[in-house]
Amino acid sequence: MTASPASSDNVQMRTDQGNDGVVNLRDKLALFSEHWSPKVVARLNDYELKVVKLQGEFVWHSHEDTDELFLVIDGRLTIQLRDGDVALGPGEMYVVPRGVEHCPIAEGEVSAMLIEPIGVVNTGGAGGELTAAHDDRLMG
Amino acid sequence: MTASPASSDNVQMRTDQGNDGVVNLRDKLALFSEHWSPKVVARLNDYELKVVKLQGEFVWHSHEDTDELFLVIDGRLTIQLRDGDVALGPGEMYVVPRGVEHCPIAEGEVSAMLIEPIGVVNTGGAGGELTAAHDDRLMG
Repeated sequence: MTASPASSDNVQMRTDQGNDGVVNLRDKLALFSEHWSPKVVARLNDYELKVVKLQGEFVWHSHEDTDELFLVIDGRLTIQLRDGDVALGPGEMYVVPRGVEHCPIAEGEVSAMLIEPIGVVNTGGAGGELTAAHDDRLMG
Repeated sequence: MTASPASSDNVQMRTDQGNDGVVNLRDKLALFSEHWSPKVVARLNDYELKVVKLQGEFVWHSHEDTDELFLVIDGRLTIQLRDGDVALGPGEMYVVPRGVEHCPIAEGEVSAMLIEPIGVVNTGGAGGELTAAHDDRLMG
């Protein structure tokens, strides 16, 4: 249970079986390739922690009932807001306040962690083809 | 707003002034040196995101009303549980379920991010000299 994130059979075994409940963010990200489709990797009370890969521009939307946290793991993410852009690199996070319109855009591929209450729809009230199924999960 | 975490006057300015709301975790960690004293760096609805430096062994405690999330940024953290240990390296996280006794231990210095509801006391019901003031914050 002490293997480094990037190596060893133990880590792989742990990712697949997850018996000990440890979540290695990069291991989870390695399990899928699609963009704009958040995957739930852990639950904290009535919140979910998700990993997501982003590339290109999303849709303008807002979440009327909740703040939304973006923590960039790899790459550079711009969160467009109506009054300016926020640029995030690895290890940087930003909370989009509830009700604030935003549109993420990633020039290259970006990996990020999101924290949201259970049941939040990724496109907020905007809908459309980028709306992700809510039951995608990479738990345990 | 696109500077790398480790360099540039822009980052320092941003850390001190924080006008754009971007939180660089390593910049925040560089602002203090004490151990076992979580610092609030962002708020998400009624939750707080905190950074903390850990070294040595904490106290056994539990939080009866909430889960607690540990995400290791640097170093190696062992979370002792009554039925075994959980070992975390950088980029790995673990949710201690509510009511579960745990005791973090760090052989070297560990930097981590915590996510908890506003108002959680670090020592849970155990109290003692390691209980941190709740109003420590490095916001904005």
